[in-house]
Formats: sequence, C-alpha cells, structure tokens
Amino acid sequence: MIYVGIDIGGTNIKTGIFDSDFNIISKTSCPFPKGQTSERICEIIREETMKLMRESGKDYDEIAAAGAAVPGSIDSAGEVVINAHNLGFNNTPLKKQLSDCFTGKTIVLENDADAAAFAELKAGALKGVKTGVFLTIGTGIGGSLIIGGEIFRGGRGNGAEPGHIIIDYYGEKCTCGNVGCAESVCSATWLKKQGMKLVKSGSDSLVYVKSGGDPEKVSAKTVIDSVKSGDTSAIRIFNEYLEYLASAAASIANLIDPEIIVIGGGISSAGDILYIPLRIKVNEKTFFDEEYTILPALMGNDAGMTGAAMKAAEITGDRYEIQK
Amino acid sequence: MIYVGIDIGGTNIKTGIFDSDFNIISKTSCPFPKGQTSERICEIIREETMKLMRESGKDYDEIAAAGAAVPGSIDSAGEVVINAHNLGFNNTPLKKQLSDCFTGKTIVLENDADAAAFAELKAGALKGVKTGVFLTIGTGIGGSLIIGGEIFRGGRGNGAEPGHIIIDYYGEKCTCGNVGCAESVCSATWLKKQGMKLVKSGSDSLVYVKSGGDPEKVSAKTVIDSVKSGDTSAIRIFNEYLEYLASAAASIANLIDPEIIVIGGGISSAGDILYIPLRIKVNEKTFFDEEYTILPALMGNDAGMTGAAMKAAEITGDRYEIQK
Repeated sequence: MIYVGIDIGGTNIKTGIFDSDFNIISKTSCPFPKGQTSERICEIIREETMKLMRESGKDYDEIAAAGAAVPGSIDSAGEVVINAHNLGFNNTPLKKQLSDCFTGKTIVLENDADAAAFAELKAGALKGVKTGVFLTIGTGIGGSLIIGGEIFRGGRGNGAEPGHIIIDYYGEKCTCGNVGCAESVCSATWLKKQGMKLVKSGSDSLVYVKSGGDPEKVSAKTVIDSVKSGDTSAIRIFNEYLEYLASAAASIANLIDPEIIVIGGGISSAGDILYIPLRIKVNEKTFFDEEYTILPALMGNDAGMTGAAMKAAEITGDRYEIQK
Repeated sequence: MIYVGIDIGGTNIKTGIFDSDFNIISKTSCPFPKGQTSERICEIIREETMKLMRESGKDYDEIAAAGAAVPGSIDSAGEVVINAHNLGFNNTPLKKQLSDCFTGKTIVLENDADAAAFAELKAGALKGVKTGVFLTIGTGIGGSLIIGGEIFRGGRGNGAEPGHIIIDYYGEKCTCGNVGCAESVCSATWLKKQGMKLVKSGSDSLVYVKSGGDPEKVSAKTVIDSVKSGDTSAIRIFNEYLEYLASAAASIANLIDPEIIVIGGGISSAGDILYIPLRIKVNEKTFFDEEYTILPALMGNDAGMTGAAMKAAEITGDRYEIQK
C-alpha cells in the first residue's frame, strides 16, 4: 500500500509517496503556483504524484489514501479550507477538488502544523512528550501545542495559532489583518524581505552576490547561507530575527512551561547558527531560570507531508505500525 | 471551624475569615507595608486576622488552617516563596514565618493567581469550564490556564505566567527584567503611572482633581473613576490600556482557543467600561471569527483570599462542601 503525503505551502508544494511503515519511497517539490485556481493546483499535485509513482515503478491502484496539509484552518467536517491566507484559499472545497483528481481514493485534509506535529509526536522529536510546543516556520508560522501527550485541539476546536500571538505591538501588519503577530517578524518571509531590502540598497553583501543582484532571487536560504559564510550584513539581519523568534518562543514558554520546543518548517534546517543562540536568548527572555530544550523537528521539512500521509492512513482505518 | 484566607498583594494585604461553606464571615485590607521585613509582614497579618476574629466573636482555637496567596512562584515543597518581585520576596521561608505567627495552625502557600483560579473554578465564573484563561490584574499580572477542567500546572510544574508573555517588543522594562511583558503595560500599575504623569503635567483633568493635585495620590482607581465621569484625558489613557490588554488576551486566546477569559484582581471591578470595549477589541485582534466570552471573576477581588482559604481546607483534609 502507498500513502501520498502532500504539504501545500505558500512557497513550495511538497509531495511524497510512503510505504506502510511511513518510509519515504520518493518525494518531490515544486513552486507554489501563485495566481492559479485551487482546481489547477490539485491537478499539479496529481501530476507530481503520478510522476513519483511512475519513477518508482508503482501503480495508481496501489495508492490507499492521500493526505494534504495546508497552512490554515479546516472546517470541522474536514472538507473545506476556511482560510489559508498564504495560499489565497478561502472557503475552498479542497477535499472535493483533490478527490476529483484522485478518483476513488480517500482524501484527508489537515492543518500543516498539526500534520507535522502528528508525525513528530508519532515518530520524531516529540515522541513521548507530554507538554510541548511545535512551531513550523516557513512562509508563515504555524504550530501546535502538545498537552497531555496529544495534539491540543483548543478549547473550541480551533487549535493553536502560535504564529498569531502578538509580540510587536507597534510592529508590521500581518497577513491575518492584525499588527505585530509573530508571523510578521519570525517567518522565513521576514528574512527574505530583509534580504531583498539589502540587495535593493546596493549593498556589497554576500546576499547581494548570491542573488546575482536581483532582489527577486533572494530567499530566506540566501540570507542563512550568507550568515554561514560570515557575511556581516546577513548576520545583523539574522540576529534581529533571532531576537524576535526568541521573544515568540519565550512568550509561549512562559504560558505553558513546555518540556520541549521543536522547530519545523523550512527554517528548521538552519543548524547551529539558529539553535545555539536561540536557546540562550529564550532562556534570557523567560520567567523561570530552568533552561528550555529547543530542537529541530526530526523529520525536518518532511514532517508536514509525512504527517499528512499518516493521517490519511489513520482515517482509512488501515492497520499500521510506525517503526521509526 | 474557621479558615483564614490571606492575599498578599504589592499594593494591599487582604485578609478574610471564612466558615466551612466558604462564606466570608469578615474581611479587611491594609496597605502592603513596603520596606518591612517578611517577618514583620507576617505579624501584621496575624494582627489583622486577630482583629477580624475578635470583632466576629470568634476564638483562636476555632481556626482550622490559614492559606496565603502570593504574587510569585513557590517551591515544590510549598514552603518558600522563590520570587515575588512586587513584594520584594526572594527565597523567603514564608510558611515557617507564618507558622511562627499562627502557632499550631496548618499554613498553606499558593500562587495568588492559582488561588483565585481555584476559587473561581470551584464556585465562580470558571465553574464547569474545560479550557479557560484566568488573568488577575493588579499591581502586576498573574494568571492561570484551565485545561481539561483543571488548573494547568505547566509542563515542568512551573505553571503559567501570562503576565510575562511579550507583547511590546520595543516596550518598557518589566519587573522580571525582560522588556515588553504584558505586565509592564496591562497592570493596574501602568494605569497608575499614566495618571501620575497626567497630574505632574499640570493637566486640568479629573484625575488631577481627584488626586488633589498630588501625583502620589493617584491610583488605577482614580483613573478609572475619572473615565466613568467622562474625563477625556483619563479616557485617552484607558483606551490605550484597553488596546494593550486586548493584545495580551488575544495572544493567549490565539494559543489555546479558550471557552472563556475571566478577569480577576483589582481591575476586574471596573465594569462595562472595561468589558464592553475589551470584548470588541479581543475579537478584532484574534485569528478566529468566533467571539470570545470575557467575564469578571465572580468573587472579584476576594477570589485570591477565598481560594487560599479553600486550599488551606483542602490540605487539612477537612471535609467541606462548596455551596456557592
């Protein structure tokens, strides 16, 4: 049996096919096609999936189910994406649209952070954790709280939106319409924007060099790579980023006193330049002296699609054992 | 049997004596004696208690136990106040010091917000709530989260510190040493400071009149009373306060999606001028469209001492039924 896991992000769509032990057989990624309809996006996802299946010598009949993770909220029936600002999805009947592209297959929708948290909780950095924080940092910021060893669904079923805690009261406008949300200053998008500003300013930084002088070619990765190469302009940007991120993490830590904070999403693979100063700054900004454990998601950037595939398997009721 | 409930705040010490149904027999309040040793403060508490007992015709022998609520963290043995910034208590062996003043009586220490939340959960605005937020707003800001119908003790036993979520990244220094905490802009102290500034500026506002032109005589209540009388300078201050408080409440709401947010402490009795705009602003600042329920603590400013008395009764193991 094959499970398809899809992680629809505002920057990239990641697609993977998994065996029943949730080992990745094959995976791929394509840019999120901005400006396209959600129906067209579903067709692209099908094309991506079929390419993976073909290249792995697998047949369509082998697909048991597909799960799609989206950066936004899903209705209680699990059929409609109520809002996913970074995708431009509003009341989008994504389950039906994906079902139309994957004829005869079970389709499951899940919030991207909850999907990633589910994968990490079952087989990753959150395994065995009772009280934890999971932040997925990419185009936006999603996340989940783990309470009582399970993903916390919120008091009214809406889940946690750690990207929308307010940390910079007089700050920038967020995609949600509010001002100063963590997402507006701690996302990969913020790093990208600062890098773009640097290039536009005609700086002679490595960010400028790596982008070929084209602000449109700057990404968070360009900035992070420049930090790793020791570029002072990039380091200045990244230090500011770390302060913001530490404030957001400290706020959440002061509220739920977690055993662990796990970072997922594109930023999670930044390595020591992220985690070492972040641990110091979070400990400085928190109320209690006891140090916090801050670790990258074990499945890194694959957690979302893996969790989506696991959720799809769970819903189909297929028996499965997670070996990882 | 009589239970003594004591709420030691940075502004006032409130003392009450309760019957075994937790009805208040008598209560009193005195200013927190700044600059005094904790031993002297314990003596004052004994004097306050004995005055209440005497005036109610009760005898010392009738006291079953006493509970003291403090605005800070208590060690896991329940004996030492690790830190209560607003009292100047650091590693203060308060249980022993109170025991020395209340010979032969069981003494229980509790965090003030947890004590108030306990009272509200047993017999107040949080009764029956599964997921809720409780904020006590006074000299500082304390609070508790209710999760699974119980007071959430935090992942590592440190509880919740909602006063120290960071909402104003470039803001004022907080008593905890960090910058921009909710406590620094949402406490009664902030309102008092703004009122003092107004009086110092020689404004002809009602705040000025009510304080007799003496900045030292301004309190949060002076400002709130002036708001109720329609004074525009006080209203301007209070509107700013409401924006900050709504941001803090919205941050927490976005994280745990509570059924209810309950406000306790001195500010909680401000009435409609607080709750009506606060509900509107919190709904504006939160991620989900669903409206939030925001209510005052049913026991108002008595919740802390009532919860402390209830905790004392719980620890003694006396059978008690809460009738309220």
